[in-house]
Amino acid sequence: MLFAKPLADLIAQLEKLPGVGAKSAQRLAYHVLRMPGDDVRRLAEALTRARESLRLCAVCQSFSEGEVCEICADPRRDPHTVCVVAEPRDVAALERINEYKGTYHVLHGLLSPMDGVGPENLKVRELVERLRADVQEVIVATNPTVEGDTTALYLAKLIHPLGVKVTRLAHGMPVGGELDYADSATLLSALEYRREI
Amino acid sequence: MLFAKPLADLIAQLEKLPGVGAKSAQRLAYHVLRMPGDDVRRLAEALTRARESLRLCAVCQSFSEGEVCEICADPRRDPHTVCVVAEPRDVAALERINEYKGTYHVLHGLLSPMDGVGPENLKVRELVERLRADVQEVIVATNPTVEGDTTALYLAKLIHPLGVKVTRLAHGMPVGGELDYADSATLLSALEYRREI
Repeated sequence: MLFAKPLADLIAQLEKLPGVGAKSAQRLAYHVLRMPGDDVRRLAEALTRARESLRLCAVCQSFSEGEVCEICADPRRDPHTVCVVAEPRDVAALERINEYKGTYHVLHGLLSPMDGVGPENLKVRELVERLRADVQEVIVATNPTVEGDTTALYLAKLIHPLGVKVTRLAHGMPVGGELDYADSATLLSALEYRREI
Repeated sequence: MLFAKPLADLIAQLEKLPGVGAKSAQRLAYHVLRMPGDDVRRLAEALTRARESLRLCAVCQSFSEGEVCEICADPRRDPHTVCVVAEPRDVAALERINEYKGTYHVLHGLLSPMDGVGPENLKVRELVERLRADVQEVIVATNPTVEGDTTALYLAKLIHPLGVKVTRLAHGMPVGGELDYADSATLLSALEYRREI
């Protein structure tokens, strides 16, 4: 008998989480046994409540409590500019800079022919439908990776015929970065897209 | 609005767990939103059930579903030999070798005068009470650290007058280890406790 049954169950459930191995699952489980009962209940409730009360926003496909998310429902946000991101967490990253005033569209993934992910597996159809309304610019903010670049090019080809401007986040040196430590692809982009000052 | 309220709540709860930073809390939360609803419910239930149904075994102070844990209640286990460990997880580590047939006693910590942890903060009184019954040997299996050594010496002094044999886990080279990589304290122990072959 390694662990009492409820403890073994908890360890088994925790081990299923990403980045939680056998050892961390045990450490977390023992921690839970020593947490105040109220804190454990709050955690358990937060888990089920988040899973049960959130759905995809009917407009941007990000996670939302209501039919339409708070950003899409906000009259101060510009619906004519749509920033396309791969994941809901990318929306949070862009909101953190507190500068962008347009709206978003979450693809829920990136094109990856190797993994069998095609446009039909992403929220591409929903994006094209939105463009029928008065959208002036689509900013593709996918990661600068092979999948991100492929997806950006695919979207550009798809959207151009609709007469909507498509832009992409600038590539270049990260602010505060050192030339010495930058990889060649980043340096190449920084040089290629150099700006007059 | 960085995150929808239920998502922000979940991230806040997850961040309180040990070893879970802001970034991993977000990653875990988004993972939960994509898990099948049943799996989330199972995880939430495992959390509350473990916390609510487990208590300390009246005999060995390890976590237990009943008044007395399965090991203490097992008639095949030898109650005359008691192995003293710091944490419940150490019981699992020793059970895994599938060799020890005695019982355990969990201290729930180690003596640490620097952190203000004295014998009254550990399950020492409960151990001494058990020794009034017919215990023949106490094996101190605390970690070979300053706190573990201090605790072992303290227990030896406390238990010797009761006429109970006190032993400690052997120190030495880990099996499969290389001399070249062993620290000096380990090598010193290995040399000091060398055995005739």
